[in-house]
Amino acid sequence: MPSPSLPAWFLGPRAENADLLERLIVEALRDHVFWRRNFHPEDGFTIRETDKRSEGYERAVATMTQELLGLLAELKRGVPFFSGRYKGHMSFEQTLASQIGWFAAMLYNPNNVAIEGSPVTTRLELEVAADLARMIGYDPARAWGHLTSGGTVANFEALWIARNIIYLPIAVAGAAHQLGVSLDVTLPDGSRAPLSSLTLWQLVNLTNGAALDLWRALFDAAPEGEVQKALNDHSLATVGYQDYARRLGRAYGDPLPAGVVLVAATAHYSWEKIVRALGIGSNQLVWIPVDTRFRMDPDALWRTVRDFSAQHVPVMACVSVCGTTEESAVDRLDEVLAVRARAERELGVSFHVHSDACYGGYAAAVTWKAGGRTRRSAAEIRASLLGLDWPGEDWVRAMAALGEADSVTIDPHKLGYIPYPAGAFLLRDRRARELVSTDPPYLAPVEGGAPTEERFLGRYIFEGSKPGAAAASVWLSHKVLPLDERGYGHLVERTVLGARRLHAALGAAAMGGFRAVMLPEPDINIVCWVMTHPSLATLAQVNALNEGIYQRMSLSAPGAQPEYIITRTRFRTPMYDGAVDPILAGLGVCSPAEWKESGAQGLVVLRSTVMDPFLVSPPPAPDHVSGFIRALTAAAAGALAAASGHP
Amino acid sequence: MPSPSLPAWFLGPRAENADLLERLIVEALRDHVFWRRNFHPEDGFTIRETDKRSEGYERAVATMTQELLGLLAELKRGVPFFSGRYKGHMSFEQTLASQIGWFAAMLYNPNNVAIEGSPVTTRLELEVAADLARMIGYDPARAWGHLTSGGTVANFEALWIARNIIYLPIAVAGAAHQLGVSLDVTLPDGSRAPLSSLTLWQLVNLTNGAALDLWRALFDAAPEGEVQKALNDHSLATVGYQDYARRLGRAYGDPLPAGVVLVAATAHYSWEKIVRALGIGSNQLVWIPVDTRFRMDPDALWRTVRDFSAQHVPVMACVSVCGTTEESAVDRLDEVLAVRARAERELGVSFHVHSDACYGGYAAAVTWKAGGRTRRSAAEIRASLLGLDWPGEDWVRAMAALGEADSVTIDPHKLGYIPYPAGAFLLRDRRARELVSTDPPYLAPVEGGAPTEERFLGRYIFEGSKPGAAAASVWLSHKVLPLDERGYGHLVERTVLGARRLHAALGAAAMGGFRAVMLPEPDINIVCWVMTHPSLATLAQVNALNEGIYQRMSLSAPGAQPEYIITRTRFRTPMYDGAVDPILAGLGVCSPAEWKESGAQGLVVLRSTVMDPFLVSPPPAPDHVSGFIRALTAAAAGALAAASGHP
Repeated sequence: MPSPSLPAWFLGPRAENADLLERLIVEALRDHVFWRRNFHPEDGFTIRETDKRSEGYERAVATMTQELLGLLAELKRGVPFFSGRYKGHMSFEQTLASQIGWFAAMLYNPNNVAIEGSPVTTRLELEVAADLARMIGYDPARAWGHLTSGGTVANFEALWIARNIIYLPIAVAGAAHQLGVSLDVTLPDGSRAPLSSLTLWQLVNLTNGAALDLWRALFDAAPEGEVQKALNDHSLATVGYQDYARRLGRAYGDPLPAGVVLVAATAHYSWEKIVRALGIGSNQLVWIPVDTRFRMDPDALWRTVRDFSAQHVPVMACVSVCGTTEESAVDRLDEVLAVRARAERELGVSFHVHSDACYGGYAAAVTWKAGGRTRRSAAEIRASLLGLDWPGEDWVRAMAALGEADSVTIDPHKLGYIPYPAGAFLLRDRRARELVSTDPPYLAPVEGGAPTEERFLGRYIFEGSKPGAAAASVWLSHKVLPLDERGYGHLVERTVLGARRLHAALGAAAMGGFRAVMLPEPDINIVCWVMTHPSLATLAQVNALNEGIYQRMSLSAPGAQPEYIITRTRFRTPMYDGAVDPILAGLGVCSPAEWKESGAQGLVVLRSTVMDPFLVSPPPAPDHVSGFIRALTAAAAGALAAASGHP
Repeated sequence: MPSPSLPAWFLGPRAENADLLERLIVEALRDHVFWRRNFHPEDGFTIRETDKRSEGYERAVATMTQELLGLLAELKRGVPFFSGRYKGHMSFEQTLASQIGWFAAMLYNPNNVAIEGSPVTTRLELEVAADLARMIGYDPARAWGHLTSGGTVANFEALWIARNIIYLPIAVAGAAHQLGVSLDVTLPDGSRAPLSSLTLWQLVNLTNGAALDLWRALFDAAPEGEVQKALNDHSLATVGYQDYARRLGRAYGDPLPAGVVLVAATAHYSWEKIVRALGIGSNQLVWIPVDTRFRMDPDALWRTVRDFSAQHVPVMACVSVCGTTEESAVDRLDEVLAVRARAERELGVSFHVHSDACYGGYAAAVTWKAGGRTRRSAAEIRASLLGLDWPGEDWVRAMAALGEADSVTIDPHKLGYIPYPAGAFLLRDRRARELVSTDPPYLAPVEGGAPTEERFLGRYIFEGSKPGAAAASVWLSHKVLPLDERGYGHLVERTVLGARRLHAALGAAAMGGFRAVMLPEPDINIVCWVMTHPSLATLAQVNALNEGIYQRMSLSAPGAQPEYIITRTRFRTPMYDGAVDPILAGLGVCSPAEWKESGAQGLVVLRSTVMDPFLVSPPPAPDHVSGFIRALTAAAAGALAAASGHP
């Protein structure tokens, strides 16, 4: 049953809630206006009514109005994300609360880099981060988080911090030696040893917790100023990679091979950008195969970790995905963590585990009962979704495991239905943020003022300016849609229902001789499939058909006005080796061996993100499943005719 | 004379233009609403009127309204940036056009990472980038640019690209050798030589243009796929720093010392973050001293370059500042470029020159006549600002030199008066963007579609999601305020007039025994000074006075309700050595030698950014200069009394 609140959450495909939105927008605007009017009324007016009667004023207003009308006309050539007819990328309309919250705060334009410019919205940002932390199972008192401009910057911060942690014990060992301090350290197997006895290989394989405890112990053992100076003498961040590698060689005989970053083969393309930018190098980005549900294969992960361990190649981090951008697949994070536990036990090897939950993070709201204090079991969730075989116990376990990841990224501007830009970075052990801190000269502490983290968020983050409006937007949306079964949980469930209905209908549809080879039912709400036709005999022909369908069902082609809008992706070898086998079998035009020769061509896969919670609404709501299948069939017929020269 | 359009550009300190803003906001909202109503009207209504009569709907609306009212009440505890009483950080209110443009486009929520999700606003972003490119003197046909979330990400992209360019010739040399291709290359002194004859030192000292030409030549000499593969075998981005350094050692005998980045001593603190994150290391960040006007000293730059050259230390980039965040100082970029030209000629050494014009970039609009095709001379500008000895010829030359910098960053959300977040990155030779390109699987080309750069902006940039609303916001603002003497140029001039008036008044004011030791008149509009009193005898006492004044004139202290708001910064040794001498002389409590022992304490400097174009408005506009001086005097008296135990 849809929640009776759902109709109040969005403007609506027909702008059914237009009056409500206009009322609250005007309320926010007038409220701001009267703040200005009441602020030191003795200052009088700066802009006089007579100023408004000048020709120059009139001209400026006329220009603004005219150009705005032009802009408004242009914007309508944009993408109708609000409509059930849009079934493409991870975009829908935004919650009313988030639009109103953004607008209200934008009038004040706070910069959340420091409390001096954002006494209110910095606090809202910390509340929002605590909301998200609780949702994924972090302890808000130990965790820390903040908003970013999006997932790339959030993921970048995660790997930036992970790199700082993995090399931290080397810096502590060097500093302790320099300061003449003796420290003991906990090894991954739980035993204790003198820090000075560790090999380089052991130093880069401490757990995050042990590394941060060690750091703390050094500060306890010597004066703070001296410790920081000694650490700087031995830190990658100060020394830089070029000299660092040489120093390790000198100090330890062998600087070890370059450290690697393990990512699920489905990981977002931005990970390649990130390792390039950080100087890690894309050769060190190692893709872990995924299974036929597009989830990272834990056995393959174990073998990779074991093999690297045998060669003494440090693993800096393992990036698991919660909601892949192509398939919305949810990695079995619990199993990924089990692999790390086994590596710590059996190999003495540890590494940072990061969950890229940029897309899927908000789905964790499904697992919380009203109030957000008690988890729902898979059976309880299924009971509320009558007739749906979702989620499985494994899905719930994977979601609960987020609380054990060292860092997690979640984009409110994806499944949070918040306007761009709003990403989020969450860190399980807040101590680690100090590893990337930098202080500006103009933001020294004020006695009796707020604690550092509230005072100057910018100290611990990459960006130097950030919209307080984003914090207000997310904050207000979380107030209206709580992060549990009543709010975001319900919203995500409705989209899962819609995606499953679309998936089932596509798989069963008679489409004039065409057939949809479906990828498995998604872990969240992205439906993927490949269209084929009995007349097609090669992978290239199948790809051409699907590319032709995409072009007929997207706004990319010039002048296109498709009835329904989808998108497409391209699965490539070797990332999708194995995972793609059932689809190839379903198509019957290409063996797994031939697939491995497909190179850049790969397999074109059609893709629909179902973020529309109204897809499963009963009549009189439109039946966009049937309409979609008709449009798809027509596009397929058109594409096939064009390919065979009969347009 | 203020432009008669000026009163129409902002909402106004008393919200004098409230009717205008409300009319256009409501217009934008209703226009969007009717787009939804007219989009496939046959789909009918999804949310029914009866849905709105349910208790759940009412409850959701009540929650949203209630929480919004709470948020609005909270926001009023924020910072009154709009008022002439705010004289702190670089924040003022935003142009009406930018607020309306943001709101209008936010309703459509396009993501400017790819045209598929933003067919309209991606085009607006490219127009905005071309506007900015023209303003700084770039050829828009050769240049390229885009918006970012702010200055840190924009500066990060600049150094990321600069690093890729400096190491590019090494990759080309390796690839050419591997492919058996012979190429010639232009050396910094203009002569030509076979690529294979170059030493490692020569390879890292080609000009940007020569490096990019060489790259092009390699692609012309062998098949594209092979070239790319061979380049990847030898590129830092793929190989990563750790292996790269070893390979250079093997291939050239000596891998050279770590490359350095030269920055003005006044450079923003984010540069330290950036070099740490990129793996360059903060030890490699070299501060070039500034003169007593806080401009990078070209002689010191020359000596630094010469000394590094003698030790064969590669210079990756030199970062010059246009509008320092503390003082709004404008480096003599023309002289910085002259140093590079001399280094190329005399030392055979070249490097990337970047201008961090995040704050000051929009001031370049002052140099353009109406229409933006012809420059104004310094004398012409001065003639329009009757009685003002600003700008000098040197300032105009420095601004014009932006067109010769390899890359420039400008924040529309600073002197562009645009809501957060809106930064911009500009690249003089667009070819260089290919050095950081990454392609996602789901955004392959469409035949007959837009060219790559329009289709998928995300290919060349760091961020993976970006608000199309920011592009619409900047675009509409540029339409109303052109980037020449009529629009932004005029706006910046008014703030310079205001800053100079405040500077003169502070320097001349009788303040009950207190005295303001003024820093020089600013290059743009940030006024800095240090307060002192005859009873103070040490630097620590002077710092305590100024810190006390700041606490009485800021919102940082709990419960503070200051009449006027300022901010402060802290000049530290060694960055400010020399530059600070005239201030120390004016204070008379600390010699330059003692200053060098001041450590973290440094010198507390009071600071007012004048972004308010109305500060020089005639009555009945309030006299915020006199009011400010009264408030400052009272704060100084309070701080002194508190320090001497008589509160």
